[in-house]
Amino acid sequence: MKRHFDEELKKLNKKILQMCALVENSIYNAIDALKEQNKDKAQEVIDNDKNIDELELVIEDKCLSLLSLFQPQAKDLRFITNATKINAELERIADLSVDIAQRVLELADQPLLKPLVDIPKLSSVAQKMVKDAIDSFVKCDTELAKKVILSDKEADNLRNLVQRELIYDYMAKDGTTAVRAVPLLLIARHLERICDHATNIAEDVIYMVCAKLVKHHHEKLDNT
Amino acid sequence: MKRHFDEELKKLNKKILQMCALVENSIYNAIDALKEQNKDKAQEVIDNDKNIDELELVIEDKCLSLLSLFQPQAKDLRFITNATKINAELERIADLSVDIAQRVLELADQPLLKPLVDIPKLSSVAQKMVKDAIDSFVKCDTELAKKVILSDKEADNLRNLVQRELIYDYMAKDGTTAVRAVPLLLIARHLERICDHATNIAEDVIYMVCAKLVKHHHEKLDNT
Repeated sequence: MKRHFDEELKKLNKKILQMCALVENSIYNAIDALKEQNKDKAQEVIDNDKNIDELELVIEDKCLSLLSLFQPQAKDLRFITNATKINAELERIADLSVDIAQRVLELADQPLLKPLVDIPKLSSVAQKMVKDAIDSFVKCDTELAKKVILSDKEADNLRNLVQRELIYDYMAKDGTTAVRAVPLLLIARHLERICDHATNIAEDVIYMVCAKLVKHHHEKLDNT
Repeated sequence: MKRHFDEELKKLNKKILQMCALVENSIYNAIDALKEQNKDKAQEVIDNDKNIDELELVIEDKCLSLLSLFQPQAKDLRFITNATKINAELERIADLSVDIAQRVLELADQPLLKPLVDIPKLSSVAQKMVKDAIDSFVKCDTELAKKVILSDKEADNLRNLVQRELIYDYMAKDGTTAVRAVPLLLIARHLERICDHATNIAEDVIYMVCAKLVKHHHEKLDNT
């Protein structure tokens, strides 16, 4: 029974890693599409999302059947319940990549506002946070998870900077830029929400490894 | 054992209903604060969010200990795993009410753009969707859950209408309106995301009652 359970757990882990790879790819392509103003790449991100949706359901189903068949305890129970949550976070990150890709399509036929303000910087932060959150999960690395949680502040600040610049330096000075500035403002928010989901994953990893809830309680990070 | 489990399940249910009441309250107050431009009410929404965060953790913990102690099967297992998800959706809805309240504070010292475009209409749709999603959960009413899912299109359309109006009728014509128009545009997006979370709850209810996944597959709604 134990061996069978361990094998099934390995299969679940493999599916989650596959999900991670698809989601990382989705963000990278959405951001590339933005930088290159590449409509085909943006459309690809949108089209590929159905594979991520399907895989989310497969993983959810797998978790539920593991809970039902093996009634796992302690760390295994925490792993599986956390897998369902991380799975949902990953799917939402992919949805946000689709949101970015849709903004790229809206922007594609008009000249970009130079120089995309601080969006490339915010993209790098978002990509790194997602990569580190996934790595912290794969390696059960709580130090890396903490780093992700602490980066979220930077993402919030960058988002605010982008927003202020777009409102005061572009739209308020020349209203006709609104059609191009609003999609960029939304992209900054999509990226910041991607960072929020990476933070949620990191919190789940700390709970999974240390059985310690840091969600809504970042002051507890020092003691993990 | 069975009696003890049933009692614990009742306690869990009670906590979730308490969470529902807090979250519904949070949206109502955030929207009232917007309509009345009432800073105190907006601040209250922000301050009360910590109670919702705490209750989320209590419910999460309760679900995990029920899974661990009683190893429930079939419908009970689905109820508990769904409770964790609905709990998370409710907490996110409350976070979005906080987002709305923050925009209200940003807008409070400046004249509103008349007549708040279609935001009051979108607010009504959002409030009704959340109320119906919660009722569908309380009454295990899949017909009501389906209704919620089908309303999501209307929310998307209203959000697009608000956005287009703010960009083309306000900001593009007079760039100085951007400072007041952008928070409204974001409020419309917060409301539309509240509708998305209500839809997620409704999908979870259908899964809980019928063991049928309709997430990402709304074409299956006819056969539930």
